[in-house]
Amino acid sequence: MAFSVTILGNASAKPTIASHPSAQVVNLNEQYYLVDAGEGVQQQLIRRGINPLRLRAVFISHLHGDHCFGIFPLISTLGLYGKRTPLTIYAPAPFGEILNNHLRYFDTELPYEIKWVEVRTTEHTLLVQNNTLEVWSIPLRHRVPTAGFLFREKQPPLNVDKWQITRHNLTISEITAAKRGEDIIRDTGERIANSDITYIPYRARSYAYLSDTNYSAKAAELVKGVDLLYHETTYASAESRTAKSRGHSSTTDAAKVALRAEAKRLIIGHFSSRYKDLNMLLNECRELFSESYIAEEGATFTIEEERVKAATK
Amino acid sequence: MAFSVTILGNASAKPTIASHPSAQVVNLNEQYYLVDAGEGVQQQLIRRGINPLRLRAVFISHLHGDHCFGIFPLISTLGLYGKRTPLTIYAPAPFGEILNNHLRYFDTELPYEIKWVEVRTTEHTLLVQNNTLEVWSIPLRHRVPTAGFLFREKQPPLNVDKWQITRHNLTISEITAAKRGEDIIRDTGERIANSDITYIPYRARSYAYLSDTNYSAKAAELVKGVDLLYHETTYASAESRTAKSRGHSSTTDAAKVALRAEAKRLIIGHFSSRYKDLNMLLNECRELFSESYIAEEGATFTIEEERVKAATK
Repeated sequence: MAFSVTILGNASAKPTIASHPSAQVVNLNEQYYLVDAGEGVQQQLIRRGINPLRLRAVFISHLHGDHCFGIFPLISTLGLYGKRTPLTIYAPAPFGEILNNHLRYFDTELPYEIKWVEVRTTEHTLLVQNNTLEVWSIPLRHRVPTAGFLFREKQPPLNVDKWQITRHNLTISEITAAKRGEDIIRDTGERIANSDITYIPYRARSYAYLSDTNYSAKAAELVKGVDLLYHETTYASAESRTAKSRGHSSTTDAAKVALRAEAKRLIIGHFSSRYKDLNMLLNECRELFSESYIAEEGATFTIEEERVKAATK
Repeated sequence: MAFSVTILGNASAKPTIASHPSAQVVNLNEQYYLVDAGEGVQQQLIRRGINPLRLRAVFISHLHGDHCFGIFPLISTLGLYGKRTPLTIYAPAPFGEILNNHLRYFDTELPYEIKWVEVRTTEHTLLVQNNTLEVWSIPLRHRVPTAGFLFREKQPPLNVDKWQITRHNLTISEITAAKRGEDIIRDTGERIANSDITYIPYRARSYAYLSDTNYSAKAAELVKGVDLLYHETTYASAESRTAKSRGHSSTTDAAKVALRAEAKRLIIGHFSSRYKDLNMLLNECRELFSESYIAEEGATFTIEEERVKAATK
């Protein structure tokens, strides 16, 4: 099952020729979620081959323009595309007011419904839950109310090992029971332990988006064990003081969060336009956390399935 | 003196990978004016080497998103750039309300002032007047209140021909009088006719922006004799009925306006995303009006100075 993150924008507030403000798409098994929506996001979606009609929901971390100005043109265009299914936007207050103004002035005849769900930025809350996914808010420390998002795959159901099916000559009903996690008890009194014949097909995977924020040990704890961590690095290590005063992070801050969270990989982005050489920022992260990568626009970071336990003995 | 128009966007409402929604910059002698501001305009300005801080004013034709969604990120970024001088935005009502909402939610601490001047879209009004330029509104026929804009260079002051200065041995005060348009009358009774020694250095030039609109004979009359005419061609000639029903123009409509206005050149744009081959649209225009050109993104159309009359005999 695919689990990936595609970077649509990696710039901070001042635009440059080559880079776009914050926006990403999380794809879990063809469920597409937009995370932040900087200006130009609709064009960036098309450029990366992602049909905007396929977006299931949008998550806005905070109401600074470089994280949300692109949602309004996207809302309008989805109307032109004839979208019929509702679109849910998770965003901090007062996004509802802003959205209502947008609809009143620009989209009075939208053919689909938009639902706003308030993200309370001081709380670690379950925002979305379905068969395969949970999305949680992560309180962040920025100049305005801001939340990160944790995409956590649900533990996939148990599989029964083919070799064990043959070995024990399991019936369909025994296999079904095993998949539910039950031991097999036969009329003969024979007992087959569930753990001997089943395995978790792959470990539940997770992705965390933490932008914009100062260093936050609390956020690191909330995303503990995350497979892929996006953490903003607006500034180089030498500008740590500037980063702190502006509610942002340096490369060192991001690497420290990755270490504390025991993340497997770190993606860095939201770069200040002052940095022409992003490798310098990357190298600063890698000194502390070797599995660091630049959130290059257009790059897709895939979290591979990883079998946790094979029952075969 | 430079007089040019740079195309920043030529698409209509649905964005494509390659094209941006409506936006142009008019440059008259290093006075820069933004005409419409579709999404991404700030990045398009930078891409074309135009410093957004140099914009003297913005003209918004109407309040459809593909003509104005880019103004809000631009307003924010100009604040980040530390702009201090006021920015005037000419736009139809209720742009003032929309602007106030933007400022309240996103730009409470802007370091410069924004002035909104209402464009009454049913009137042909002088909006801007300075030493070198007039900008007039042109009522258009769209689904919502819409105005085009006519940029008209002021007639440059008379020059005195160098050869005539030598020939008549003109004094400084005689030259000054001649530049004011006066005849020279000497103590000897000698009279030198102004028209014999002066010339208009070049004909006053003009540019008209007509988008979005149905065919309008009235608009054509109001821009009569224009050097460069931008007219929307959302649709091909075969889609004239669709064009008409949606408040847009076909290639034929645009060419007819150019003919009626006796324009020297026609630029076409605001293309529906359905047309992959813009040359087809161009050829349709050229059948009626040979001096037709595609508003290619990044193209600059220069209106050259043209000496009207040389006095030298």
